[in-house]
Amino acid sequence: MITALAGGVGAARLLRGLVRAVPADEVTAIVNTGDDTLLHGLLICPDLDTVTYTLAGMHDDERGWGLAGETWAAMEALERLGGESWFRLGDRDLATHLYRTQRLSQGASLSVITREITGALGVGARLLPMTDDPVRTRVTLVEGPEVGFQEYFVRRRHAVAVRSVRFDGADRCRAAPGVIDAITSARTVIVCPSNPVVSIGPLLAVPGIADALRERRQTVIAVSPIIAGAALKGPADRLMAELGQEPSVVGVARAYADIAGTLVVDDADAGLCDQVEATGVRCLVTSTVMQTAGDAQRLSTTILDASGRPVSDGPGR
Amino acid sequence: MITALAGGVGAARLLRGLVRAVPADEVTAIVNTGDDTLLHGLLICPDLDTVTYTLAGMHDDERGWGLAGETWAAMEALERLGGESWFRLGDRDLATHLYRTQRLSQGASLSVITREITGALGVGARLLPMTDDPVRTRVTLVEGPEVGFQEYFVRRRHAVAVRSVRFDGADRCRAAPGVIDAITSARTVIVCPSNPVVSIGPLLAVPGIADALRERRQTVIAVSPIIAGAALKGPADRLMAELGQEPSVVGVARAYADIAGTLVVDDADAGLCDQVEATGVRCLVTSTVMQTAGDAQRLSTTILDASGRPVSDGPGR
Repeated sequence: MITALAGGVGAARLLRGLVRAVPADEVTAIVNTGDDTLLHGLLICPDLDTVTYTLAGMHDDERGWGLAGETWAAMEALERLGGESWFRLGDRDLATHLYRTQRLSQGASLSVITREITGALGVGARLLPMTDDPVRTRVTLVEGPEVGFQEYFVRRRHAVAVRSVRFDGADRCRAAPGVIDAITSARTVIVCPSNPVVSIGPLLAVPGIADALRERRQTVIAVSPIIAGAALKGPADRLMAELGQEPSVVGVARAYADIAGTLVVDDADAGLCDQVEATGVRCLVTSTVMQTAGDAQRLSTTILDASGRPVSDGPGR
Repeated sequence: MITALAGGVGAARLLRGLVRAVPADEVTAIVNTGDDTLLHGLLICPDLDTVTYTLAGMHDDERGWGLAGETWAAMEALERLGGESWFRLGDRDLATHLYRTQRLSQGASLSVITREITGALGVGARLLPMTDDPVRTRVTLVEGPEVGFQEYFVRRRHAVAVRSVRFDGADRCRAAPGVIDAITSARTVIVCPSNPVVSIGPLLAVPGIADALRERRQTVIAVSPIIAGAALKGPADRLMAELGQEPSVVGVARAYADIAGTLVVDDADAGLCDQVEATGVRCLVTSTVMQTAGDAQRLSTTILDASGRPVSDGPGR
């Protein structure tokens, strides 16, 4: 069994390859819910939905988010009413949020609802929200206010400087059923190429998850979302710099050093491997850019092959 | 100024004519909210929306509900997920519920939100919800359970026998701002041809509304929704019979005798005028079937003309 810690788009791309490299039902993804937001009365779980839609083959790869063949009648009508339309909800995508919100009102947990949605859409992998409790990533901007994650990420297009990030509710949440066991019992744990601060950060803030990873650090393999000092997508590089972390594979290695024994870096960063290994993390160099599902499958196979090999477990060793 | 007490489709049809017979901004409609329901986390107000869409010229006349040119992508996706899709929400219609729910979560009242929606859609008449507080029509079926109104009306297509009806929350609600004044100060008050039990009934259960009508009973004109013993649409005839009321214009006259001085009945019921007047209600005979906006305008003009004439105020007088 393989367990992956997942944010949104970057994670979904890798998972799409992972379920081609091994049988899908051997894959568990533990997904960030810190991005979740209540909008128009509906609970929206962007990372869960991105992973679900991608694994269901329904994701719009060109747009980079949402469903392929989506229509926007509801959003257009909402604009006519003067409603808040900065968070674009397609008509079909809306159904996911309607379903989730209705089931929550009936008392179902997010774990159960996620299983129902992935089942209905034919997703073979197991998706677990990191927690069934509300955890909300909050971002304090340099210009002043603390805002919700989607306010920062979507409404302001992450084009504003960030002072700090916190995960409201994380200290009192419980890992969702199956989460800790999926980390403990997996043959390999993969930390997907997601934003270390706002995608993997919330996962590590859930009580028990970081401890479970530390316990088996040598067989935890992280994939760097930073390539040649930049994020392929999203604000990971900028956020790391703003929070005092080096926006490079070395900074990623430092962020993950206590939970991962290996960091997979792109060929472009081969020259930084010595510095990565100086943090006590084995450096594995390969092509990490995933344009196609085939690319993702190759990367997955490389990761899984590497997970059999011995790993260093301290600085300089 | 003209004030109308309104349910859904029948009321909307009359109001469409009323705003042609007099300037739209002289018309206030006080609308039933007992049909309102929370579904998928969204507050849905069927009667307010039917009146709004009709007056905005957006109503689907052929289907009889919802918006013309509507699409159903969200509902189809919801069905794929196995969600509850018996209450059909079109993609554009969904925007109304998203907007309303979002504004409620921001602390706006239903009155304010209704003004915003009607303003955005170019409705000239003033629409007031009967109350800003939650009132929910509950229906006890002969076969046993008490169910919500939409469960009875839509899911079971009102094809089940009813034992009793109550308006949960009505005793502790307050009439929305402007409601009582609109009744008191209007030149004429019209009770639209809506279901006396479940459309006008909730309005009369709001504290202060029935009293205000009784105070000016002689210039309150009701239009019978029953023609030749049957409702043109919906279960008014059946419901009246099940609740021990005569499903005829005579039964309607009895139901409204203490709040309305005049009942408008269709030509088909001219033979029952003596029995209507025996209840103390003046009987006005005209064509009440509204196929077109022109029909509705003619009926409105007839009502308004009649409101100038003297009215009997007791049995046999």
